[in-house]
Amino acid sequence: MDIEKVNSMDFGEFVDVFGNVIERCPLIAAAVWSQRPFSDLEDLKKHFFAFIDALPQSGQEGILRCHPDLAGSELRRGTLTAESQREQSAAGLTSLGTDERLRLAELNAQYRARFGFPFVLAARFSDRAAVSRELARRLLCPSAQELRTALGEVKKIGSLRLADLLRADAAKL
Amino acid sequence: MDIEKVNSMDFGEFVDVFGNVIERCPLIAAAVWSQRPFSDLEDLKKHFFAFIDALPQSGQEGILRCHPDLAGSELRRGTLTAESQREQSAAGLTSLGTDERLRLAELNAQYRARFGFPFVLAARFSDRAAVSRELARRLLCPSAQELRTALGEVKKIGSLRLADLLRADAAKL
Repeated sequence: MDIEKVNSMDFGEFVDVFGNVIERCPLIAAAVWSQRPFSDLEDLKKHFFAFIDALPQSGQEGILRCHPDLAGSELRRGTLTAESQREQSAAGLTSLGTDERLRLAELNAQYRARFGFPFVLAARFSDRAAVSRELARRLLCPSAQELRTALGEVKKIGSLRLADLLRADAAKL
Repeated sequence: MDIEKVNSMDFGEFVDVFGNVIERCPLIAAAVWSQRPFSDLEDLKKHFFAFIDALPQSGQEGILRCHPDLAGSELRRGTLTAESQREQSAAGLTSLGTDERLRLAELNAQYRARFGFPFVLAARFSDRAAVSRELARRLLCPSAQELRTALGEVKKIGSLRLADLLRADAAKL
Protein backbone atom coordinates (compact mmCIF):
# COMPACT_ATOMS: atom_id res chain seq x y z
CA MET A 1 0.00 0.00 0.00
CA ASP A 2 1.25 3.53 -0.58
CA ILE A 3 1.58 6.17 2.08
CA GLU A 4 -1.60 7.98 0.93
CA LYS A 5 -3.51 4.81 1.77
CA VAL A 6 -1.89 4.76 5.23
CA ASN A 7 -2.72 8.43 5.78
CA SER A 8 -6.35 7.86 4.82
CA MET A 9 -6.93 5.22 7.51
CA ASP A 10 -9.10 5.96 10.52
CA PHE A 11 -7.58 4.86 13.83
CA GLY A 12 -9.50 1.58 13.84
CA GLU A 13 -8.06 0.49 10.48
CA PHE A 14 -4.61 1.78 11.40
CA VAL A 15 -4.51 -0.25 14.63
CA ASP A 16 -5.87 -3.32 12.80
CA VAL A 17 -3.05 -3.09 10.24
CA PHE A 18 -0.12 -1.79 12.33
CA GLY A 19 -1.12 -2.96 15.84
CA ASN A 20 1.53 -5.69 15.97
CA VAL A 21 4.46 -3.82 14.41
CA ILE A 22 5.65 -3.75 18.01
CA GLU A 23 4.77 -7.19 19.36
CA ARG A 24 1.52 -7.13 21.40
CA CYS A 25 1.71 -3.36 21.84
CA PRO A 26 -1.24 -1.99 19.83
CA LEU A 27 -1.05 1.02 22.16
CA ILE A 28 2.06 2.15 20.26
CA ALA A 29 0.45 1.99 16.80
CA ALA A 30 -2.61 3.71 18.29
CA ALA A 31 -0.39 6.50 19.61
CA VAL A 32 1.54 6.85 16.34
CA TRP A 33 -1.75 7.54 14.50
CA SER A 34 -1.78 10.93 16.28
CA GLN A 35 1.31 11.92 14.23
CA ARG A 36 -0.26 11.44 10.78
CA PRO A 37 0.11 12.38 7.96
CA PHE A 38 3.32 10.43 7.31
CA SER A 39 5.57 11.35 4.39
CA ASP A 40 6.82 7.80 3.71
CA LEU A 41 7.76 4.46 5.30
CA GLU A 42 10.84 5.99 6.96
CA ASP A 43 8.74 8.72 8.53
CA LEU A 44 6.21 6.19 9.85
CA LYS A 45 9.05 4.10 11.28
CA LYS A 46 10.59 7.19 12.87
CA HIS A 47 7.39 7.85 14.83
CA PHE A 48 7.20 4.26 16.12
CA PHE A 49 10.82 4.47 17.29
CA ALA A 50 10.43 7.95 18.80
CA PHE A 51 7.54 6.70 20.92
CA ILE A 52 9.65 3.80 22.22
CA ASP A 53 12.63 6.07 22.93
CA ALA A 54 10.47 8.55 24.88
CA LEU A 55 9.08 5.92 27.27
CA PRO A 56 10.47 5.70 30.79
CA GLN A 57 12.71 2.67 31.40
CA SER A 58 9.81 0.72 32.92
CA GLY A 59 7.83 1.22 29.69
CA GLN A 60 10.76 0.07 27.56
CA GLU A 61 11.11 -3.01 29.76
CA GLY A 62 7.33 -3.43 29.44
CA ILE A 63 7.63 -3.62 25.64
CA LEU A 64 10.21 -6.39 25.96
CA ARG A 65 7.99 -8.29 28.43
CA CYS A 66 5.21 -8.41 25.81
CA HIS A 67 7.49 -10.57 23.61
CA PRO A 68 7.36 -14.38 23.68
CA ASP A 69 10.38 -16.58 24.32
CA LEU A 70 12.12 -17.86 21.20
CA ALA A 71 11.27 -21.56 20.78
CA GLY A 72 9.33 -21.32 24.06
CA SER A 73 6.01 -22.50 25.47
CA GLU A 74 3.94 -20.22 23.25
CA LEU A 75 5.42 -21.72 20.13
CA ARG A 76 4.61 -25.22 21.46
CA ARG A 77 1.06 -24.21 22.48
CA GLY A 78 0.44 -22.43 19.16
CA THR A 79 -0.42 -19.10 20.81
CA LEU A 80 2.21 -16.93 19.10
CA THR A 81 1.08 -13.95 17.04
CA ALA A 82 1.10 -14.68 13.28
CA GLU A 83 4.13 -12.42 12.81
CA SER A 84 6.14 -14.08 15.57
CA GLN A 85 5.21 -17.55 14.31
CA ARG A 86 6.50 -16.68 10.83
CA GLU A 87 9.72 -15.17 12.16
CA GLN A 88 10.54 -18.05 14.53
CA SER A 89 9.73 -20.49 11.76
CA ALA A 90 12.05 -18.70 9.30
CA ALA A 91 14.90 -19.05 11.82
CA GLY A 92 14.26 -22.80 12.06
CA LEU A 93 13.05 -22.58 15.66
CA THR A 94 9.90 -24.59 14.95
CA SER A 95 11.90 -27.70 14.11
CA LEU A 96 14.39 -28.00 16.96
CA GLY A 97 15.29 -31.38 18.43
CA THR A 98 14.45 -31.98 22.11
CA ASP A 99 18.00 -31.38 23.33
CA GLU A 100 18.31 -28.10 21.43
CA ARG A 101 14.89 -26.96 22.67
CA LEU A 102 15.71 -27.77 26.31
CA ARG A 103 19.08 -26.03 26.07
CA LEU A 104 17.38 -22.90 24.69
CA ALA A 105 14.67 -23.07 27.38
CA GLU A 106 17.35 -23.19 30.07
CA LEU A 107 19.18 -20.19 28.57
CA ASN A 108 15.90 -18.26 28.18
CA ALA A 109 15.08 -18.89 31.86
CA GLN A 110 18.53 -17.68 32.96
CA TYR A 111 18.16 -14.59 30.81
CA ARG A 112 14.69 -13.74 32.18
CA ALA A 113 15.91 -14.23 35.76
CA ARG A 114 18.95 -12.01 35.17
CA PHE A 115 17.34 -9.10 33.26
CA GLY A 116 13.62 -9.21 34.13
CA PHE A 117 12.55 -9.44 30.50
CA PRO A 118 12.71 -12.15 27.83
CA PHE A 119 15.49 -12.53 25.26
CA VAL A 120 14.42 -10.63 22.15
CA LEU A 121 16.17 -11.10 18.82
CA ALA A 122 15.15 -10.30 15.24
CA ALA A 123 14.97 -14.00 14.38
CA ARG A 124 14.69 -13.40 10.65
CA PHE A 125 18.31 -12.23 10.61
CA SER A 126 19.35 -15.41 12.42
CA ASP A 127 19.27 -19.20 12.38
CA ARG A 128 18.91 -21.83 15.11
CA ALA A 129 22.62 -22.13 15.85
CA ALA A 130 23.10 -18.36 15.94
CA VAL A 131 20.12 -17.88 18.31
CA SER A 132 21.67 -20.05 21.06
CA ARG A 133 25.09 -18.52 20.55
CA GLU A 134 23.77 -14.97 20.71
CA LEU A 135 21.62 -15.75 23.77
CA ALA A 136 24.63 -17.22 25.61
CA ARG A 137 26.68 -14.15 24.69
CA ARG A 138 24.09 -11.52 25.67
CA LEU A 139 23.43 -13.29 28.98
CA LEU A 140 26.83 -11.98 30.10
CA CYS A 141 26.28 -8.32 29.14
CA PRO A 142 25.72 -5.53 31.68
CA SER A 143 21.99 -4.77 32.25
CA ALA A 144 21.94 -1.23 30.87
CA GLN A 145 23.73 -2.30 27.69
CA GLU A 146 21.44 -5.31 27.31
CA LEU A 147 18.31 -3.14 27.56
CA ARG A 148 19.66 -1.00 24.69
CA THR A 149 20.57 -4.08 22.63
CA ALA A 150 17.14 -5.64 23.16
CA LEU A 151 15.32 -2.42 22.17
CA GLY A 152 17.49 -2.32 19.05
CA GLU A 153 16.18 -5.80 18.19
CA VAL A 154 12.58 -4.62 18.80
CA LYS A 155 13.23 -1.87 16.25
CA LYS A 156 14.73 -4.29 13.71
CA ILE A 157 11.66 -6.53 14.09
CA GLY A 158 9.37 -3.50 13.75
CA SER A 159 11.20 -2.27 10.62
CA LEU A 160 10.82 -5.63 8.93
CA ARG A 161 7.13 -5.86 9.85
CA LEU A 162 6.43 -2.33 8.61
CA ALA A 163 8.28 -2.97 5.34
CA ASP A 164 6.33 -6.22 4.88
CA LEU A 165 3.01 -4.48 5.45
CA LEU A 166 3.72 -1.71 2.98
CA ARG A 167 5.14 -4.14 0.41
CA ALA A 168 2.57 -6.91 0.82
CA ASP A 169 -0.31 -4.65 0.06
CA ALA A 170 1.53 -3.05 -2.86
CA ALA A 171 1.76 -6.51 -4.43
CA LYS A 172 -1.98 -6.99 -4.00
CA LEU A 173 -2.89 -3.72 -5.74
CA MET B 1 -5.16 -12.95 46.32
CA ASP B 2 -3.12 -10.96 48.80
CA ILE B 3 -0.39 -8.51 47.89
CA GLU B 4 2.37 -10.98 48.83
CA LYS B 5 1.02 -13.26 46.09
CA VAL B 6 1.12 -10.35 43.63
CA ASN B 7 4.68 -9.48 44.66
CA SER B 8 5.82 -13.06 44.18
CA MET B 9 4.73 -13.20 40.52
CA ASP B 10 7.30 -13.28 37.73
CA PHE B 11 6.55 -10.89 34.86
CA GLY B 12 4.89 -13.59 32.79
CA GLU B 13 2.32 -14.39 35.49
CA PHE B 14 1.85 -10.71 36.29
CA VAL B 15 1.06 -9.83 32.66
CA ASP B 16 -1.24 -12.86 32.38
CA VAL B 17 -3.22 -11.71 35.43
CA PHE B 18 -3.10 -7.90 35.09
CA GLY B 19 -2.54 -7.48 31.34
CA ASN B 20 -6.09 -6.24 30.69
CA VAL B 21 -6.51 -3.92 33.69
CA ILE B 22 -6.06 -1.25 31.04
CA GLU B 23 -8.02 -2.54 28.06
CA ARG B 24 -5.75 -4.20 25.46
CA CYS B 25 -2.65 -2.52 26.91
CA PRO B 26 -0.57 -5.37 28.41
CA LEU B 27 2.41 -3.05 27.92
CA ILE B 28 1.19 -1.03 30.91
CA ALA B 29 0.93 -4.01 33.29
CA ALA B 30 4.31 -5.18 31.98
CA ALA B 31 5.80 -1.78 32.81
CA VAL B 32 4.17 -1.62 36.27
CA TRP B 33 5.90 -4.91 37.20
CA SER B 34 9.17 -2.91 37.29
CA GLN B 35 7.80 -1.02 40.34
CA ARG B 36 7.26 -4.07 42.58
CA PRO B 37 7.03 -4.76 45.48
CA PHE B 38 3.61 -3.16 46.02
CA SER B 39 2.38 -2.38 49.52
CA ASP B 40 -1.32 -2.93 48.77
CA LEU B 41 -4.06 -2.60 46.13
CA GLU B 42 -3.95 1.20 46.32
CA ASP B 43 -0.22 1.19 45.70
CA LEU B 44 -0.59 -1.12 42.71
CA LYS B 45 -3.35 1.11 41.32
CA LYS B 46 -1.18 4.20 41.86
CA HIS B 47 1.54 2.76 39.63
CA PHE B 48 -0.90 1.94 36.81
CA PHE B 49 -2.27 5.51 36.94
CA ALA B 50 1.17 7.12 37.21
CA PHE B 51 2.23 5.33 34.04
CA ILE B 52 -0.82 6.64 32.17
CA ASP B 53 -0.32 10.18 33.48
CA ALA B 54 3.35 10.21 32.41
CA LEU B 55 2.61 9.29 28.77
CA PRO B 56 2.70 11.98 26.11
CA GLN B 57 -0.74 13.00 24.82
CA SER B 58 -0.40 10.68 21.81
CA GLY B 59 0.11 7.74 24.20
CA GLN B 60 -2.93 8.70 26.26
CA GLU B 61 -5.00 8.94 23.08
CA GLY B 62 -3.47 5.58 22.09
CA ILE B 63 -4.84 3.98 25.27
CA LEU B 64 -8.32 5.24 24.42
CA ARG B 65 -8.02 3.93 20.85
CA CYS B 66 -7.42 0.41 22.22
CA HIS B 67 -10.96 0.45 23.68
CA PRO B 68 -13.95 -0.95 21.79
CA ASP B 69 -17.12 1.03 21.07
CA LEU B 70 -19.93 0.51 23.58
CA ALA B 71 -22.60 -1.67 21.95
CA GLY B 72 -20.50 -1.61 18.77
CA SER B 73 -19.35 -4.05 16.11
CA GLU B 74 -17.05 -5.99 18.45
CA LEU B 75 -19.91 -6.78 20.78
CA ARG B 76 -21.96 -8.03 17.81
CA ARG B 77 -19.05 -10.07 16.43
CA GLY B 78 -18.21 -11.51 19.87
CA THR B 79 -14.59 -10.26 19.79
CA LEU B 80 -14.66 -8.18 22.98
CA THR B 81 -12.25 -9.00 25.80
CA ALA B 82 -13.91 -11.00 28.60
CA GLU B 83 -13.78 -7.97 30.92
CA SER B 84 -15.38 -5.65 28.39
CA GLN B 85 -18.06 -8.21 27.55
CA ARG B 86 -19.01 -8.48 31.24
CA GLU B 87 -19.06 -4.70 31.73
CA GLN B 88 -21.14 -3.96 28.63
CA SER B 89 -23.48 -6.76 29.59
CA ALA B 90 -23.91 -5.40 33.13
CA ALA B 91 -24.95 -2.04 31.66
CA GLY B 92 -27.61 -3.77 29.52
CA LEU B 93 -25.79 -2.99 26.27
CA THR B 94 -26.01 -6.57 25.03
CA SER B 95 -29.79 -6.44 24.85
CA LEU B 96 -30.51 -3.18 23.02
CA GLY B 97 -33.30 -2.94 20.46
CA THR B 98 -32.32 -2.14 16.87
CA ASP B 99 -33.29 1.54 17.13
CA GLU B 100 -31.34 2.06 20.33
CA ARG B 101 -28.32 0.26 18.87
CA LEU B 102 -28.38 2.34 15.67
CA ARG B 103 -28.77 5.57 17.64
CA LEU B 104 -25.74 4.64 19.76
CA ALA B 105 -23.73 3.64 16.66
CA GLU B 106 -24.46 7.05 15.12
CA LEU B 107 -23.38 8.88 18.30
CA ASN B 108 -20.23 6.71 18.60
CA ALA B 109 -19.30 7.54 15.00
CA GLN B 110 -19.80 11.28 15.60
CA TYR B 111 -17.69 11.06 18.76
CA ARG B 112 -14.83 9.19 17.03
CA ALA B 113 -14.85 11.69 14.13
CA ARG B 114 -14.79 14.65 16.53
CA PHE B 115 -12.14 13.48 19.03
CA GLY B 116 -10.08 10.83 17.19
CA PHE B 117 -10.71 8.18 19.85
CA PRO B 118 -13.74 6.11 20.86
CA PHE B 119 -16.20 7.02 23.61
CA VAL B 120 -14.99 5.37 26.81
CA LEU B 121 -17.21 5.06 29.87
CA ALA B 122 -17.04 2.84 32.96
CA ALA B 123 -20.18 0.98 31.88
CA ARG B 124 -20.60 -0.79 35.23
CA PHE B 125 -21.52 2.54 36.82
CA SER B 126 -24.11 3.12 34.11
CA ASP B 127 -27.15 1.69 32.33
CA ARG B 128 -28.32 1.75 28.73
CA ALA B 129 -30.29 4.99 29.00
CA ALA B 130 -27.46 6.77 30.82
CA VAL B 131 -24.87 5.64 28.23
CA SER B 132 -26.66 7.42 25.35
CA ARG B 133 -27.33 10.48 27.46
CA GLU B 134 -23.71 10.73 28.60
CA LEU B 135 -22.39 10.16 25.07
CA ALA B 136 -24.61 12.94 23.69
CA ARG B 137 -23.45 15.26 26.49
CA ARG B 138 -19.71 14.54 26.16
CA LEU B 139 -19.88 14.93 22.37
CA LEU B 140 -20.24 18.67 23.01
CA CYS B 141 -17.27 19.07 25.37
CA PRO B 142 -14.00 20.79 24.39
CA SER B 143 -11.31 18.33 23.21
CA ALA B 144 -8.80 18.88 26.03
CA GLN B 145 -11.49 18.45 28.68
CA GLU B 146 -12.86 15.34 26.95
CA LEU B 147 -9.42 13.70 26.87
CA ARG B 148 -9.18 14.20 30.66
CA THR B 149 -12.71 12.88 31.20
CA ALA B 150 -12.07 9.81 29.06
CA LEU B 151 -8.80 9.00 30.88
CA GLY B 152 -10.71 9.33 34.16
CA GLU B 153 -13.09 6.65 32.88
CA VAL B 154 -10.12 4.43 31.91
CA LYS B 155 -8.95 4.73 35.52
CA LYS B 156 -12.39 3.90 36.94
CA ILE B 157 -12.51 0.80 34.72
CA GLY B 158 -8.97 -0.14 35.76
CA SER B 159 -9.80 0.31 39.48
CA LEU B 160 -12.79 -1.98 39.22
CA ARG B 161 -10.84 -4.62 37.30
CA LEU B 162 -7.96 -4.52 39.80
CA ALA B 163 -10.33 -4.79 42.75
CA ASP B 164 -12.10 -7.73 41.07
CA LEU B 165 -8.81 -9.53 40.48
CA LEU B 166 -7.62 -9.14 44.04
CA ARG B 167 -11.05 -10.05 45.47
CA ALA B 168 -11.83 -12.91 43.09
CA ASP B 169 -8.76 -14.82 43.99
CA ALA B 170 -9.20 -14.10 47.71
CA ALA B 171 -12.56 -15.88 47.48
CA LYS B 172 -10.89 -18.88 45.88
CA LEU B 173 -8.27 -19.27 48.62
